[in-house]
Amino acid sequence: MNEKLLVVGSVAFDSLKTRAGNRHEILGGSATYIAIAASHFCKVNLVGVVGEGDFPQAHIDLLTSKRVDLEGLEFAPGKTFRWSGEYADDFSTRQTLDTQLGVFEKFDPKIPDAYQGAKIALLGNINPSVQLQVLNSLKGNPFVITDTMNLWMDIALEDLKNVIARTNLLVINDEEAVQLSGELQIRVAARKILAMGPESLIIKRGEHGAYLFTQDTIFFAPAIPLEEVIDPTGAGDSFVGGLAGYLAGEGKTTVAALKKGMIFGTAVASATCEGFGTEQSAQMTKDDVLNRYYMLLNLVSTD
Amino acid sequence: MNEKLLVVGSVAFDSLKTRAGNRHEILGGSATYIAIAASHFCKVNLVGVVGEGDFPQAHIDLLTSKRVDLEGLEFAPGKTFRWSGEYADDFSTRQTLDTQLGVFEKFDPKIPDAYQGAKIALLGNINPSVQLQVLNSLKGNPFVITDTMNLWMDIALEDLKNVIARTNLLVINDEEAVQLSGELQIRVAARKILAMGPESLIIKRGEHGAYLFTQDTIFFAPAIPLEEVIDPTGAGDSFVGGLAGYLAGEGKTTVAALKKGMIFGTAVASATCEGFGTEQSAQMTKDDVLNRYYMLLNLVSTD
Repeated sequence: MNEKLLVVGSVAFDSLKTRAGNRHEILGGSATYIAIAASHFCKVNLVGVVGEGDFPQAHIDLLTSKRVDLEGLEFAPGKTFRWSGEYADDFSTRQTLDTQLGVFEKFDPKIPDAYQGAKIALLGNINPSVQLQVLNSLKGNPFVITDTMNLWMDIALEDLKNVIARTNLLVINDEEAVQLSGELQIRVAARKILAMGPESLIIKRGEHGAYLFTQDTIFFAPAIPLEEVIDPTGAGDSFVGGLAGYLAGEGKTTVAALKKGMIFGTAVASATCEGFGTEQSAQMTKDDVLNRYYMLLNLVSTD
Repeated sequence: MNEKLLVVGSVAFDSLKTRAGNRHEILGGSATYIAIAASHFCKVNLVGVVGEGDFPQAHIDLLTSKRVDLEGLEFAPGKTFRWSGEYADDFSTRQTLDTQLGVFEKFDPKIPDAYQGAKIALLGNINPSVQLQVLNSLKGNPFVITDTMNLWMDIALEDLKNVIARTNLLVINDEEAVQLSGELQIRVAARKILAMGPESLIIKRGEHGAYLFTQDTIFFAPAIPLEEVIDPTGAGDSFVGGLAGYLAGEGKTTVAALKKGMIFGTAVASATCEGFGTEQSAQMTKDDVLNRYYMLLNLVSTD
């Protein structure tokens, strides 16, 4: 557990409405979910930006209590990124009600010297031009995990392709894989995307689990069928955060480690869905994480 | 391989249009797909009805060559059931273009004496009142596997509930599970449906795999990510046919056997999708079936 995971992404206030209720301006953002999920497995160095006057000490205390180093969290003049969304009752779709980028609009990530030399760097879902800037400023030769979304395929495809070419493990969902490759069958899509440079590709399918593709491996990690979904916000970030945290904690990036990491990531993501925001994923114990890991192994065991 | 599976269901001509092409009046129907899938594991006794003048000898020859006994196939005055459908390019939806029930409208299944005493009986997706009639005419105490669909939940729910109460293993898809239980989360839906009588419930999710629920087990069988889908017609029937055939062939209905049977069913169903109608599932060899079985075990192996 000596290795620290480097995470670059958004820190935000989310206002959420689901069939289970609603929350106003709670702690959110990709880097937040990633860091909290990863903190179950390793220490985390977080790079992000929030408003200098509106970010509560309680959030800082929560993150630091989780072994998340905040030297890389910039407090900039202006307001913290705010996002507001509402989910359909079956959680199959969500509608963005409001987005106020605030200080995140001009996010100019600076990697503190103490963060350099990370073995594993996770680029959360932010503008690919900013991801490129981070890649250019990283020293050493980290194993790069990249998350992205369809928006960047629409408006910044060339930058995104440059990021992907320099990525070791790309993590996207199935719709994004179809869009990026132009192929409807994800197995064919995966082959085309691997040809863009990454040695490994994870295609997330939400409640249906996630696939890992490499040149010579296909692996599937199922999801846990939940009794109740409260709020799926951040589940994808929690998945990749748990995965990356496991890799950093173990100091391994083999295919076998990726497989186990996906199951640990799924374990944390399932808890994320059972509360609003980071409520559940932040309060998991090591035993909670392990129990869900073994539940997932058992789910596909024919013994 | 002494046990014979008893199958009651439809035998039909399907006219199909998919992104891969089209076929006119090829062999289809739930009992057909089930019997061909099961034939890889056991002998099959088929109960169904076709038109006395329009059912080609070639279809009879195909089925008998697969060790499917046709003493229970009635040749009735009138025309064989015809169905015609067209799939969306991504196979997420299909539209029925035409349905001509023909002799199937008055399907009055008679179980030949030689078919009585079956250890495993599979009721394909037909009117629950006809399924009840079959249950009432079966001698001995077979392990009953029931398939059904949302149509019968809409128009024959009481009969269906009677069938379900006398069913050992109910096999439905996720939308049907939601409709039948009134619950959005399939884990909760499963609990409510198990309370209706069956000791086991399989919830199919198409390309996303299938869940098995019993009072104290949850098991998930993933699907194979396919290079190409030609025609998914009959994939669900092939799945349950392969599963039931495996149980009959092994002479076991334990939870462990159900799990392995689901994987064998998935193996056959994946081949069904790679050709029109029964083209691919009928020509599989034992090695093809085993190769796909081990591919599926390997897909979720963390080793």
